This record gives sequence, C-alpha cells and structure tokens, in this order.
Amino acid sequence: MHAIIISIGDELLIGNTLDTNAHWISNELTQLGIDVLSRWTISDKKEVIIKNLHSAVQKADFVFITGGLGPTNDDLTIESLAVFFHQPLIFHEEIWDDIQQKHFNRKSVAKEAGKKMAFLPKNAIPIPNPKGTAPGSIYFEHDRMIVSMPGVPYEMKAMMQETVLPLIQKKYKMSAIVLSHIYTAGVGETVLSEALQDFEKNLPQNFSLAYLPSVGRVRLRISGKGDNKGELEKASYKLTQKAVSLIQRYVYSTTEPSFEAVIGQILREKKLQVGAAESCTGGYLSHLFTKIPGASDYFKGSIISYSNEIKISALNVKKETLDRYGAVSEQTVSEMLSGALTSLYVDIALAISGIAGPSGGSKEKPVGCVYIGVANRQEQYIKRLQFTNNRDLNIELSANTALVMLHIFLKKHYL
Amino acid sequence: MHAIIISIGDELLIGNTLDTNAHWISNELTQLGIDVLSRWTISDKKEVIIKNLHSAVQKADFVFITGGLGPTNDDLTIESLAVFFHQPLIFHEEIWDDIQQKHFNRKSVAKEAGKKMAFLPKNAIPIPNPKGTAPGSIYFEHDRMIVSMPGVPYEMKAMMQETVLPLIQKKYKMSAIVLSHIYTAGVGETVLSEALQDFEKNLPQNFSLAYLPSVGRVRLRISGKGDNKGELEKASYKLTQKAVSLIQRYVYSTTEPSFEAVIGQILREKKLQVGAAESCTGGYLSHLFTKIPGASDYFKGSIISYSNEIKISALNVKKETLDRYGAVSEQTVSEMLSGALTSLYVDIALAISGIAGPSGGSKEKPVGCVYIGVANRQEQYIKRLQFTNNRDLNIELSANTALVMLHIFLKKHYL
Repeated sequence: MHAIIISIGDELLIGNTLDTNAHWISNELTQLGIDVLSRWTISDKKEVIIKNLHSAVQKADFVFITGGLGPTNDDLTIESLAVFFHQPLIFHEEIWDDIQQKHFNRKSVAKEAGKKMAFLPKNAIPIPNPKGTAPGSIYFEHDRMIVSMPGVPYEMKAMMQETVLPLIQKKYKMSAIVLSHIYTAGVGETVLSEALQDFEKNLPQNFSLAYLPSVGRVRLRISGKGDNKGELEKASYKLTQKAVSLIQRYVYSTTEPSFEAVIGQILREKKLQVGAAESCTGGYLSHLFTKIPGASDYFKGSIISYSNEIKISALNVKKETLDRYGAVSEQTVSEMLSGALTSLYVDIALAISGIAGPSGGSKEKPVGCVYIGVANRQEQYIKRLQFTNNRDLNIELSANTALVMLHIFLKKHYL
Repeated sequence: MHAIIISIGDELLIGNTLDTNAHWISNELTQLGIDVLSRWTISDKKEVIIKNLHSAVQKADFVFITGGLGPTNDDLTIESLAVFFHQPLIFHEEIWDDIQQKHFNRKSVAKEAGKKMAFLPKNAIPIPNPKGTAPGSIYFEHDRMIVSMPGVPYEMKAMMQETVLPLIQKKYKMSAIVLSHIYTAGVGETVLSEALQDFEKNLPQNFSLAYLPSVGRVRLRISGKGDNKGELEKASYKLTQKAVSLIQRYVYSTTEPSFEAVIGQILREKKLQVGAAESCTGGYLSHLFTKIPGASDYFKGSIISYSNEIKISALNVKKETLDRYGAVSEQTVSEMLSGALTSLYVDIALAISGIAGPSGGSKEKPVGCVYIGVANRQEQYIKRLQFTNNRDLNIELSANTALVMLHIFLKKHYL
C-alpha cells in the first residue's frame, strides 16, 4: 500500500510556515505499514491542485491532502476536488449548523464567509472537526482513498486519530511492520557502518537498516515487513541483539532515545549525585541534564566558571595553575574536578574547559581544543579533544563528549 | 524565476526526521525574489531520484536538492546525478585530501568508505563544505541551475550562504527586493499586530509586512519589491522607522537578530559584568549568554543551584528562608540575587527559581510558576510569572523573560 501526501499553501512555499503535518502523517502511516512514496508541497492555485491530484491517484493507493479549507479566497482545495471528481458542490445544512454552534459556544458569531466551509463535493464523506470549524472529507474512487484535511496541525491530527486512521485499519488489511531501534553515542556513522557491514549484507530481504545521525549520536533503525507479526517480532528481536553485540561499546539503549535520560536513570538507580564545572560550554551541559524531568533526583548543580576569578573562588583552582598551564589545560580541569566534588557535594563531577571560538585560539591550543574530565573521589579521567572551528558545534560536541565519558565511567565503576 | 526543492531521504518519508531544509531554502529564495513552485520529498532510490530530476528541470529554472551525500550505501544522490547528466564520476583528489585533513584536525582517521564522497559527476562544480565533509555540487544545463547539498541543516545552510546564494545573486539579475527587519522580545504577535493595524493598512502596494514569531520573540519583516532599488531602500527605511516608533518599547534592534548579542553589546559598552543564579532553568540562561562569541567580555559565570544545599552553600540563601517561603518564592530569589552579586563579583545579577514541571506543582504554586529577578547593588526587581505546563517551554520562556527584564533594567539604569 502506497501513499502520497500533499501539503497545500503558499505560506509553506515562501518559507513562512514550517510544514510539520506531512512529517506527522508520514510517521502514522509508516506505523500502519503504509509506504509513503513521496510528499509534495504545492501552491494553492486551483489548476496546480487539480494537476497534482491527477498525478497522485495514478501513483498511490492513498492521497492525503492538508490545507486550503478555510473561509478565505485563497482556500481552493474543495473547489479543486469538485472539479477533479466532476461533482457538484453540495451545501451541508448540518455542517453549517455545527459551525454556527461552535461560534456560539465561543461567544462569537459565525461570519457569512464561513458558509463556504459547509460546501463539499457530492461524493464527499465529511470528517467531523472536533478541534475547529472546517470539516475534512474522504473520497473513494477506483480503490483509491483521498483524504482532505485542514492545515492547522491539531485539527488535522484530531481528524486522523478519531476518524481516518481507524477507518483505514478497519477497511484495509495491511502487512505488519516491526521497527526496532539502537541508540548510540560518541561514534560516527562511518565507524558503525563498517562494524555492521556484514550484518547489513546478510539481512533477510524483508528487513532493512537505516542510520539516522545527529550531533554526537547515531540512531539505528531495523525495520521488518511481513505477514506474520509474531514471527517478524521474533526475527526483529534476534537481529537487534545481533547488531547490538557488534557495536556494544557505543550503544546506550534500545528503548530510550534520550542519552541524558539513560544516564539519569543509572544515576538514580545507583543513588549517585552529579554536578559540573563548566567553562567553555557555559551551562549547556547542565541544561542537557536538567532538560530531563526529575533531574533533581541526581543532578545537584553546577559552577559555570566562565572567568578565572570564579574558577579560583568557587572551584578552588590555584592561581599558579592558571598562570602556569592556562585555563585550558589538563591541570586546570583536574582542579576543577576536585573543586566541583567539594563545592557541589557530589559523588561524581564533570569538568570542561576549552576554546569554543571563533577567537581565543593559539598554535598550541587552537579553536576547538577542549579538555574534558570526569571524576569521583577515587578516580579521575581527563581527555584532550580537538573539535571544529564552529562555536555552536564545539559547545554541543563538548557537552556530548562529557556525557559519553560519564556513561563509560558509570559502566566501568558502578555497573 | 522559478525553483523546485527536492528533499531526499527515506528517514523523511517514514516521518523520523523533520525536514526543515526545504522550509529554510524556501525562505531564502523568496527573499531573493525567486518563486518556489513546489517542494518534493522523495525516497532515496536511484530511479526515483532520476525521475524527479527530469520532472524538475522541465518545470523550474532552479532545482535544489538536499540529502543523500553521505558515505553509506543508501546515499545515492551523486550516482543519480551522474546518470541523469550522462556523465562519468570523477575522483577529486583535493576533496579527498580535504576530508582526510578534517579528520586529522579532529585527531581521527578518514575511513576508506568516506572516499566515496570525493567522487562527483564530471560536469560538477564542487561546493566546499565549511561545516562538514561531504561536498555539495552545482550543475548548469540549458540555462537551468541544479544544486546538490547535504541534508545536515548546518552544512546545507553554510553552503547556501557562503557559495550558492552569492553566486545566484551575481549570475542572475532579479527585480530588486528590499527587506528590513524589526526585532522584538517579550511581546506577542497579537499585541504587535494591533499596534500596527493602521500602519499595515496604509502600506504602499509593493510593500508587505510579515510576523515571524518564535518563543518569546517576534521578528517583523517589511519587504518591498520594485525596479528602482534606491527608491525602494528610501521607502523601506521610512516605513521601518514609522513601524519602530509605534512599538518602540518592545524593539531591541533593527539590525541584530540576536537578543543576547544586543544585550551583550550594551554590557560590553557600559563595561558591566553579569552573572546568574539559576534553579529551574538549570543552565539554559547561561547557555544563552555564552552562545554569543566574545561573551567572556561581560559574562563572568553562574551558580546552577538545582538543590537547596547549593543555594545555601554557594549563594548564601538562608535555610530559614527556604524553610519558610520555599525555594520557589520572591524571598529566595531575592537572596539568590544578593548571593550571585557577591559570589560572582558582578555588577548585575539575574536569578530564576520556579517549577518547570511536569511534577512538583502545588495549588498555590502550580507547574509553570516562576520567580525571576534582576539586580545591581542598589536596585532589585522580582516578578512572579505563570507559564505553561510544558517543561521545555517553561525553561525557554523563563530564560527569555530574564533577558527581557535585564534589557529593561539596562535601559532604565544605564542608557
């Protein structure tokens, strides 16, 4: 079963509104086992809409259209559908009543222009709009299903969840799809794809592997398709275990996408308190910890020692150390770690000092040079890293590397 | 001039990755005066890519392609372009050297699989990738311009800004377009549009006004189109001044988009040092300050006092205050401000304590209740705010409000 998603609206094409509808629908259809062939974002001109409808029904079993259902003159989806199906527009008294009632409930009065939304092509099956006024509509023609919905994301989602998706599940019998994920950190796509080269080659024909990278993380997705969901799940489980075993040291979870949440869960379980001394990351590492709900269970706080004065006063870094080795050095980070353990009363401390850029670099310590450390009261690990010449990226990579080092530290000493 | 944007990748079609590239490119092209006809999101299969290339060059003067340039087996854009243009793939020694050099700078070694990225169709003009490894490429054929770029947003944007957009502006002559911006903070779109209602009605026909909101900020864009650039610029300047005068108190700049940078510039000029005591924002406010290059000129550091223990030890908040009024209270934030002024040796301090959620709320202080303060050694302002029940949004709104309060404080006491 194949689908095409059409997003209608000049406000999308000029880059004013970010289209999240097509993305959301894609995800829902994938979970149902429907392949999204392609997605088109098109202008709200009538002839363009009609042309694209013709093209879409030739290629796909399902066509999902969002946008162009409002009361204004540039809302032409319904008129286009009527032309496309050679059907007259029919006024639906019950829809107009519903629109007026909704306005009444909001203590306003429905504008005459809103009457337009009560007209639908004769072959339309109306979709109620629980979150707004403009109804959606469904059309069946030659085994094709065409669905028209508003562009307002929460109205569209409500229609899909309450009407469209249940109808599809009931009406069509689709082959099962099983997805599994492997979440990794601190490793690039290339290293992973080399380690998994043979695994990928030997995948059963109905399975595929995808690499989904973001800064410092790579998510692997193994997807399988078939008729027997039970067997698929068994095979998927085995394949996932196999893949995990090949890249074990980089994997942080197969169930929880958030690295920070996985680390937080370990800290919570082991009753460990953590804190940080941040220089060049300027609070970003602490932000990553505290983004996670419930972080106060294990995250106590941080010292953002952006200036040397704070390194000395709040973290007890020695002035001689700063003078002799510089703020960006193994020695300073070592003292920052000790200072954080003491000042923050934590079991484990992280410390970062580096040159985020764009200025401040030297030949010996260029922009992107960062020292990162993790320590408890017994052990201390410090690494020198060389990242990029991009400030934002250096901040992100530094914080991410600190998390990777903490994860390794926890695995080594506490698990 | 017309453009089509093609986003390539199964990770988009299955709804795993949200495509923000096509949106961003649309906006850039619109500003150049190029109409985006449509945008297509397609699978990374070779025959699909080739088919869509054929279709796109028939319709548009410009075709922008993102995605499918990585080292893995599912990256097939370059091979497809070679087939489409009937050109052999040529190995670019200088690109491979550059890739190896970039790995060397990061103290890693380029994998053999990465060599793939140094191959381009014979008719390609390579685009340097200042933020990553895979190069982009430009092709000219029958007055059409085809541009292939990576799917990683910051790599694509850097290529567009540094190479592609300047080239288009140089090579093609388009009807002049003049844009001006007004940057506001701490006010909603509705309030602004009410204040600018008459202004908008009376705009000359060739000018338009757009509201571009993000969390806590609204950017206004006044755009004018015409043949005489000089006259356009004069009219644009006058209109911008007029609009600014109507919403003066919310405007922080007409030239610098970053609120943090504008605040930083004031602090730098007035030789003021700033620091923060953060509780529920957990480092995010400090991150906003330190994202700006050169922030160390005026930002000294922060205490992230996520636990009460740190509030007491590092900020001298009294235990009695915490016991009596709670950590989320005007009294605690007041003591956090004093503590930050003393411990961080700064001229101005910010402090935030609140309930980010999702748990921790009470009837008296529900989730989203946040106290925010700003102070120097003479004056102290503290506000109680009630934000949402969304944790991420509460963190963002709290930090943003702290910046708005700091900006007002600076205007009142130092400008």
